[in-house]
Amino acid sequence: MSDLPTTMRVSVLESVGQVVVQERPVPAPGPDEVLVRIGSVGICGSDVHYYRHGRIGSYVVESPLVLGHEAGGTIVATGRDVPADRMGERVALEPGVPCRRCRQCKEGRYNLCPQISFFATPPVDGAFAEFVAIAADFAHPMPPQLSADAAALIEPLAVAVWACGKAGVSAGSRVLIAGAGPVGLLVAQVSRALGAQEIVVSDVAPDRLETALRLGATRTLDAADTGTAVGVDAFIDCSGAPAAVRSGISAVRPAGRVVLVGMGAAELSLPLALIQERELVLTGTFRYANVYPTAIALAATGQVDLDSLVTSRFGLDDVRSALEASAEPGSIKAIVEPGGRAVGI
Amino acid sequence: MSDLPTTMRVSVLESVGQVVVQERPVPAPGPDEVLVRIGSVGICGSDVHYYRHGRIGSYVVESPLVLGHEAGGTIVATGRDVPADRMGERVALEPGVPCRRCRQCKEGRYNLCPQISFFATPPVDGAFAEFVAIAADFAHPMPPQLSADAAALIEPLAVAVWACGKAGVSAGSRVLIAGAGPVGLLVAQVSRALGAQEIVVSDVAPDRLETALRLGATRTLDAADTGTAVGVDAFIDCSGAPAAVRSGISAVRPAGRVVLVGMGAAELSLPLALIQERELVLTGTFRYANVYPTAIALAATGQVDLDSLVTSRFGLDDVRSALEASAEPGSIKAIVEPGGRAVGI
Amino acid sequence: MSDLPTTMRVSVLESVGQVVVQERPVPAPGPDEVLVRIGSVGICGSDVHYYRHGRIGSYVVESPLVLGHEAGGTIVATGRDVPADRMGERVALEPGVPCRRCRQCKEGRYNLCPQISFFATPPVDGAFAEFVAIAADFAHPMPPQLSADAAALIEPLAVAVWACGKAGVSAGSRVLIAGAGPVGLLVAQVSRALGAQEIVVSDVAPDRLETALRLGATRTLDAADTGTAVGVDAFIDCSGAPAAVRSGISAVRPAGRVVLVGMGAAELSLPLALIQERELVLTGTFRYANVYPTAIALAATGQVDLDSLVTSRFGLDDVRSALEASAEPGSIKAIVEPGGRAVGI
Amino acid sequence: MSDLPTTMRVSVLESVGQVVVQERPVPAPGPDEVLVRIGSVGICGSDVHYYRHGRIGSYVVESPLVLGHEAGGTIVATGRDVPADRMGERVALEPGVPCRRCRQCKEGRYNLCPQISFFATPPVDGAFAEFVAIAADFAHPMPPQLSADAAALIEPLAVAVWACGKAGVSAGSRVLIAGAGPVGLLVAQVSRALGAQEIVVSDVAPDRLETALRLGATRTLDAADTGTAVGVDAFIDCSGAPAAVRSGISAVRPAGRVVLVGMGAAELSLPLALIQERELVLTGTFRYANVYPTAIALAATGQVDLDSLVTSRFGLDDVRSALEASAEPGSIKAIVEPGGRAVGI
Repeated sequence: MSDLPTTMRVSVLESVGQVVVQERPVPAPGPDEVLVRIGSVGICGSDVHYYRHGRIGSYVVESPLVLGHEAGGTIVATGRDVPADRMGERVALEPGVPCRRCRQCKEGRYNLCPQISFFATPPVDGAFAEFVAIAADFAHPMPPQLSADAAALIEPLAVAVWACGKAGVSAGSRVLIAGAGPVGLLVAQVSRALGAQEIVVSDVAPDRLETALRLGATRTLDAADTGTAVGVDAFIDCSGAPAAVRSGISAVRPAGRVVLVGMGAAELSLPLALIQERELVLTGTFRYANVYPTAIALAATGQVDLDSLVTSRFGLDDVRSALEASAEPGSIKAIVEPGGRAVGI
Repeated sequence: MSDLPTTMRVSVLESVGQVVVQERPVPAPGPDEVLVRIGSVGICGSDVHYYRHGRIGSYVVESPLVLGHEAGGTIVATGRDVPADRMGERVALEPGVPCRRCRQCKEGRYNLCPQISFFATPPVDGAFAEFVAIAADFAHPMPPQLSADAAALIEPLAVAVWACGKAGVSAGSRVLIAGAGPVGLLVAQVSRALGAQEIVVSDVAPDRLETALRLGATRTLDAADTGTAVGVDAFIDCSGAPAAVRSGISAVRPAGRVVLVGMGAAELSLPLALIQERELVLTGTFRYANVYPTAIALAATGQVDLDSLVTSRFGLDDVRSALEASAEPGSIKAIVEPGGRAVGI
Repeated sequence: MSDLPTTMRVSVLESVGQVVVQERPVPAPGPDEVLVRIGSVGICGSDVHYYRHGRIGSYVVESPLVLGHEAGGTIVATGRDVPADRMGERVALEPGVPCRRCRQCKEGRYNLCPQISFFATPPVDGAFAEFVAIAADFAHPMPPQLSADAAALIEPLAVAVWACGKAGVSAGSRVLIAGAGPVGLLVAQVSRALGAQEIVVSDVAPDRLETALRLGATRTLDAADTGTAVGVDAFIDCSGAPAAVRSGISAVRPAGRVVLVGMGAAELSLPLALIQERELVLTGTFRYANVYPTAIALAATGQVDLDSLVTSRFGLDDVRSALEASAEPGSIKAIVEPGGRAVGI
Repeated sequence: MSDLPTTMRVSVLESVGQVVVQERPVPAPGPDEVLVRIGSVGICGSDVHYYRHGRIGSYVVESPLVLGHEAGGTIVATGRDVPADRMGERVALEPGVPCRRCRQCKEGRYNLCPQISFFATPPVDGAFAEFVAIAADFAHPMPPQLSADAAALIEPLAVAVWACGKAGVSAGSRVLIAGAGPVGLLVAQVSRALGAQEIVVSDVAPDRLETALRLGATRTLDAADTGTAVGVDAFIDCSGAPAAVRSGISAVRPAGRVVLVGMGAAELSLPLALIQERELVLTGTFRYANVYPTAIALAATGQVDLDSLVTSRFGLDDVRSALEASAEPGSIKAIVEPGGRAVGI
């Protein structure tokens, strides 16, 4: 660790719309932690939402917060109880470290741990920083053939793997996906990797639908026509749009599944009689658990393409631009490179 | 079969509110069928609903209909391909016979068969009749220690077994049940039989809650307080009341289950954000499949008490009175005895 | 049906090693059946076994038997209750029609139906015939882009889909497959289609291992080295070789699965302590249920290649040669074309 | 903690057959631990096996070892990060604390953690001691109505709950249990609590079978007749006897389950063809995970009776007698009370 700097640059959300770069001490890894030099960080819709609104539901930004939770990098220091040979390892960071002691943790659903410490969720700082310390088992080894951006984008891929798992996507499945943003596009790719037969993607934006076709969709629909899909085994909502949710549900065959990934309305009127008559199974996803190795494998074998999702890239000084760019039409995934030297693609 | 009459008495719903007794030919059992002399028939809320409104959702009574689908009796004739030694067998009738050929049938979910022929669902006649012919494998043998009423009430018990299965009720479970009508009371009993630790039942009627306590509930709540239950593993709605559904959902722990049994509003506003954050699994039930043997076993071993649900009994001439009685406060389950001689309990 | 012949040619196993062609009446389809003109029939190891030994376990050939259960063809007549527009449809035949009434059938496991009537299993005739009548729902529509051979080979593909399902193969799985015969090669392909990360195939024959590499295996092992694979999520035995089964089991990680597809010894000494300490789940497969549509989808989307498994083809007069060829090294799958004109590939 | 002694008495297995009492320092609880004054400790067959043979499989006693892993007691000190209000709490100790970081731990199967530290498994000391320190979340609160012995016997009850879970025991199940020792008797009780319809127990000892009948069995069989049970849904072996395992497997219906709890032969010849033809699912259990709360609930509600399993009790000076007594016919469960004053029942 002797060559490491003692301070680092960090991008901080000071208040709604206000992002500044600060100098902070480089964190010292705890006994079970590693210190990671961050390579790439993807920008998620939740980052943009905090930046613009200062809150998501009951999570409120009450003091300066470092955003960014889709991150990868390289281990540059290891804690006391971590094998020293992990030094230099390229890693994808799983951004939520749970308590490991509660019922949810011990039953294998650590994503539902009430004590989880999750990057960029108030008051826990995220990864728009040169260095981050994290529990060693949440820094997952990346195979050499994958890029630094891919290491960052394992995070949204994990969201997609989790969603497809809950939806029971498997060989021969017919899947309807609402929303062709980054998560919807990844759900389409994962569905393809799992052997799905039909992968129908709906969105309002024609260019996104074109991307969907390139990345695994077998058919696309204008969002207004979501309900014209019929008899699908699973509907996975990645749009958060109430109309899409309602019409998507009506497209599911008896005993099929509905998985709500996109955060949308806190309340929504749903077709209960239909859910009962068809015995549909409806659930939502909250992050993911135990799927990073699978996500990395899907990227490593080339079954999922992460790099082609990147539409722009920025340095740490330009996080504000990155957040703004991220919300523009045509953008799929903006990347921040805290180590600098980033230029737009 | 030589001793059987050629005609029989049948109670027919002529139009909304109009019930008459008619003479009809005794049906001849098909090759795979048995002819059953009906002993007891329970009255279900759906019978009352057809009687009063002439429809349930998209099921519309368009011509005279025999009601009654909770039925038991004795085999008095066997079809060509049915073992003759089933003659004289006491049976509980599973009232929906599916096509056996569609995907849902072949995958074990015959309750979702689009071609199912279900008693007392337009245009299929039900069991308010002296005799009924039914597929032999849907006439389930009843052990001798169980009553004729119990044979009829295996049907709502099957509803409860199916619901508890979907809810994952097992040893140590904490279960919240909204609605202490016949189904809610049976769900409570089945939950107890499955080893549940806490069985909380809510209802608006104090007398029903007392019955619930007697039959397995460990605690009762006024319906308005449904949401004061917290951290339950499963919420099973048997009330169809929107307020109960909404507050019941909020009582479920992360990764818990919500099962909607009671038919209520076609549409309902649900707390989607909560379903997502807790990854709740919500589903509904539509009848049942493959649970009659289990239901009969639970009654046979005494783990579920069916007889004590019966609050009144009527002959075939009094079906109208039975339907009216069924809807009165204090009534749990009214029984029609098509063979006559019934007197009020 | 007026253009159909009244008799047809059939290849009959008269006794061990004796195969003759006979003229028989063309069967008339029952009300729920279709009549299929057979295009291609694959030869399975079980056909060869009956031909050579006259029995498989408790199934004994006691009278002349038509072999062949991997078959596809074209519907040339429809029974009374079958939609007439199925005439001319190309179909893959699912060769076992169950009773539809027993517990196993109604619970969705019709492959375990004790009354199942399965092609080429004594005393039920198979498909080495110009025409076959079969229940309409067991004649599955084939998409136009797939060959006649593919229609036949949906059957072993169904075996592989069923095995992978029991083994829980999914995205990121590490799978060990013993035996690179037709089933092992299809299990490898299905594993790849399901997103498996590592697919290790072992066999004694180097040429089969080369084929495995071409069709999805990520690594191959000599059969003697099966146990050098370590930490796999699932071991699928398609060899029936006791040594492979035993060493394969030892390669499975804790909580992993073992699926035995290949019929081998009736009895085998297994490492029980290891199964217990690792809580391995061991099961076998007996044919399949409800997977034909999935198998067809996997072939239709090109995720599984069936045609390249065919190594030789024969006419109905040459069934004996086909059975002999089938057992030779280098042979993967021999095809019989009952309609004639077949020449060796 | 000021009132606690600094040293305590501990019973140590010095070598095969040699048990001595030693004075050792009272352990100081770590930050996440509690210190528990041990009330009762049950003697398990594994304790007797270590005492007699110095090893179980690959676990070898190479230095002095404290035996005893079925323990309950009272919290007398709390670590820094444990709520102080747990002082005085009566607890059942779950004797294996895992690493919480490996794949098995994070996926909810911490019983398979390769780093687990389990009482009385070399080289980890057990609970034949006046005090034990343990992770706070592995000291489970006991309700007041349950005895000190019951707190100890939650451990074998957890074994039974785990086994019944793997066997899929539920309402209406038919279960065959081989072996009427403590675990078999508890499996019978748990099966009853889960609503099983038939609970058949086999053993060589008539007195054990009588106990089984008293505690939940609906029928008993001499061990030699285990295979006369037919068509059971699940066979749970708690005997470790090869003949029982083999004949028990043959009693299971198609698609039923076989769960091996009792440690027996490292290798066993099994009827593979039968497992395949019936698609039986066979697995073993290794301790348990996440079932202590359920086990405690079953005892608390009276569905399982633990106290009546206790057949003798001893003080810390008499551990050797307790181990010897434990192996005698007629003994079900011997209890050691490290705090003294124990007299034989």
